Amino acid sequence: MAPSPYQQLEQEFRRLHAFRGAASLLRWDAAVMMPRGSADVRGDQLAALDTECHALLTSPRVSRLIERSLAAESQLEDWQLANLREMRRERDHAIATPLSLVSRLAKATARAEVRWIEAKEQADFSLFAPHLEEVVALTRDRAQVLSKALGLAPYDALIDEFSPGFLGTEIDQLFRVVSRRLPVLIRDAIELQAAKPPLPIATRVGPARQRALAIEVMRALGFPFNRGRLDESTHPFTEGVPGDVRITTRFDATDPFAGLFGVLHETGQAMYDLGLPEAWRDQPVGRDRGMALEESQSLLLEMVIGRNRPFIAWLHPLLEKQFGVSGPEWEPGNLYRILTRVRRSAVRMDADELTYPVHIMLRYELEKRILDGVLAVRDLPAAWNEGLERRLGLKPANDAEGCLQDVHWAIGSFGYYPSYALGALIAAQLYESLRADLPALDEQIAAGQFGGLFSWLRENVHSVGARVSSQELIKNATGKPLSAAPWLRYAESKYLEQ
Amino acid sequence: MAPSPYQQLEQEFRRLHAFRGAASLLRWDAAVMMPRGSADVRGDQLAALDTECHALLTSPRVSRLIERSLAAESQLEDWQLANLREMRRERDHAIATPLSLVSRLAKATARAEVRWIEAKEQADFSLFAPHLEEVVALTRDRAQVLSKALGLAPYDALIDEFSPGFLGTEIDQLFRVVSRRLPVLIRDAIELQAAKPPLPIATRVGPARQRALAIEVMRALGFPFNRGRLDESTHPFTEGVPGDVRITTRFDATDPFAGLFGVLHETGQAMYDLGLPEAWRDQPVGRDRGMALEESQSLLLEMVIGRNRPFIAWLHPLLEKQFGVSGPEWEPGNLYRILTRVRRSAVRMDADELTYPVHIMLRYELEKRILDGVLAVRDLPAAWNEGLERRLGLKPANDAEGCLQDVHWAIGSFGYYPSYALGALIAAQLYESLRADLPALDEQIAAGQFGGLFSWLRENVHSVGARVSSQELIKNATGKPLSAAPWLRYAESKYLEQ
Repeated sequence: MAPSPYQQLEQEFRRLHAFRGAASLLRWDAAVMMPRGSADVRGDQLAALDTECHALLTSPRVSRLIERSLAAESQLEDWQLANLREMRRERDHAIATPLSLVSRLAKATARAEVRWIEAKEQADFSLFAPHLEEVVALTRDRAQVLSKALGLAPYDALIDEFSPGFLGTEIDQLFRVVSRRLPVLIRDAIELQAAKPPLPIATRVGPARQRALAIEVMRALGFPFNRGRLDESTHPFTEGVPGDVRITTRFDATDPFAGLFGVLHETGQAMYDLGLPEAWRDQPVGRDRGMALEESQSLLLEMVIGRNRPFIAWLHPLLEKQFGVSGPEWEPGNLYRILTRVRRSAVRMDADELTYPVHIMLRYELEKRILDGVLAVRDLPAAWNEGLERRLGLKPANDAEGCLQDVHWAIGSFGYYPSYALGALIAAQLYESLRADLPALDEQIAAGQFGGLFSWLRENVHSVGARVSSQELIKNATGKPLSAAPWLRYAESKYLEQ
Repeated sequence: MAPSPYQQLEQEFRRLHAFRGAASLLRWDAAVMMPRGSADVRGDQLAALDTECHALLTSPRVSRLIERSLAAESQLEDWQLANLREMRRERDHAIATPLSLVSRLAKATARAEVRWIEAKEQADFSLFAPHLEEVVALTRDRAQVLSKALGLAPYDALIDEFSPGFLGTEIDQLFRVVSRRLPVLIRDAIELQAAKPPLPIATRVGPARQRALAIEVMRALGFPFNRGRLDESTHPFTEGVPGDVRITTRFDATDPFAGLFGVLHETGQAMYDLGLPEAWRDQPVGRDRGMALEESQSLLLEMVIGRNRPFIAWLHPLLEKQFGVSGPEWEPGNLYRILTRVRRSAVRMDADELTYPVHIMLRYELEKRILDGVLAVRDLPAAWNEGLERRLGLKPANDAEGCLQDVHWAIGSFGYYPSYALGALIAAQLYESLRADLPALDEQIAAGQFGGLFSWLRENVHSVGARVSSQELIKNATGKPLSAAPWLRYAESKYLEQ
């Protein structure tokens, strides 16, 4: 029997998945293994694969097959229908942006990124401003065409690429609730912690020991080393495909925890990828549900689980063994105080669980104003500094620690930032349900048993893939639509405990 | 101005080059980095890339562009004409074999390879025989269709895939000359060496020290580590593209030289790849001139240069430093005797410079007889054992050390073997000219100066790419067509010196 249009589509998207997997491995290699001089060669290879993926998604054949499959929807099962919807979403995104715009954006962001590095090094925004203006203008065009194609507001169309289904109005509402409570919460937490400051840790721990600990922790969490690797790179990341997940971290001898918690962050995402529905692994419906959900899995492990008392109680003897350390500063109580320390900082990467959302909400506010044309690019530094002072009560020393600190806008990632804070909210809401469903969770974690945790996540989050929207996924998993309340409850009980 | 058909072809082959480069990196990763469980995922990615390359080469568009470019040949320059000829050759190869035959061969060889491993483990040819028969039958079909498309005899059409331009009749003639002289040469060399056996070396040298030495030697040879890497894998190989060359070796603590000489072998090929014409790097004419030429560059470094007295004189202090060794067994004279020892063995991989061609000529003779149908697959073990005894005066202990020792036939690589011996002949002929052109070569090598050597190779071999045929390349470089005489002169003067 000849394959149906829908079956032919599955075949096309299987090819797409293979090309994307190849591209992902090439990016991993570029960051971890590739000799420095080979960047030009790798750029050509990645461009050829990207072009091929774009050509596949925008081909008349695929569009024809989508229309014919939509016409015969009644013959499709649930998963197939969801798959078809995701195929269509990918096609719509690809086809909306004309190739000329894609190519102008690629060139503009490549230039802007180089200039951003220089500008940051010299703490001089004026070097970067004209390039950012160009990227913003092109991004506005892109938002317009995407808006038309997807039937979403322009900014929502940009969000849709990273965290499909979330709308600006919804995010406004969530962030408003958090903003109202957060400044006081931060102030109170810092005051409380000041009464009992942790003993400092100044021990230098070499990368080999840190790596051994990270591997032991990953094994305990259930990371399958026959299906993935841990390596080192300048910036930690997760690449690869569900059957071959590559995570990286960076070990810093002067900070014995940064590498490990980077590993927890990436392992959270990796376990999500590895738990995606096996049967749909090479189809759009088998992919993760976007950045906000991914970030929720990362933060759940890095922040919520990784920085709670039961986890630290379990970690403590491993630290002593692998790092060869002991003493009062390494006792669980003191470690907990170090790992949950709240500190106001101008720099997002130095932020803690409480102050991090402040940084995100500032960027969210500013990028919307820039795209709307309410804020001119040249006025960004002043607006940034004013916003940080208003929200966190401090000023960056210069633009390098201010509006130049992140690469996102230089590379055209507008609509990406909110996923960081959404991820924190989702993590807290999942955690609340998880604790209700698994009353023995703390005891299990203290005993280094993570099977219950990951079974729950696999069933309620990972195995869902992209079958339902983010909102439905969260509602199915927790019984309630996403709200800021669980995060506020979690943050208050954790940071205001006496 | 609209791009000409020829310019459009260059664009298509640029894409092909990018896909092949990506595939090469994926193969490198699979052998060096990939977690064991991810082979299925990698298989899908490689299959998708292979299919894409095949589709590109066999597309009506590419054939049309080739015909139109041929019609306008007068407007093309030398390099472009040569490029067009290579494009056509690749297209002819790809289009000749029907996809159904490609796919049947892929399946048959995949099965045969698995059964070959089992059969070798159990030293039982009967387990492998039916699968080899299937591969042979399909290979015969492939030789037929290729023969028709390329206008070559069937076996020559198979050779053409690996070492384009070499013909069976020519190889017969070269091998006949070598065969006539070699048995006596081997006998005399062994007799001579028996009079002065080397002091044995039993020192175990850990992989870290062996690696440090290998890196130091590669640096001295001029290997650009900003454009390539050295890693470890079960079987040494060279992958990647001219701008990003990845070589591997295997370090064995019980053999302090195998890893290093594996590195020399692969570095020879790597330097060839790195010296290919930069301006044509992503076009067919910018590729290497096939297996025989590649092997010549490997053997020139591993056997001819690497096992001569000046090189060993230079290597000696490095060995002492990196391995922390000393004593009479590590003196240059003794090292030379160890590294040039001639020993009859049933196993190709254990062979030395003199006995290696014997193994190749045996396989060449047998594969032609099998393809011609003169020798039945079931009679292969007997024919193998008879041939080895006739040529080398010994019998393999069993089929695992006999006709099951190599994977080549299982994976359908017929027509590949002769390149090993052709490579040795070419290396010797190049070396003769090289010495004539560079009278100070020995002194330079003894001083660790390899610039003269590689300048000559770059000018006469590497930078030629695929602009002329192998035969022309050799004739241009040495002033004479390829013959066995230089190799015999080289072997006699090296192994019969008193």
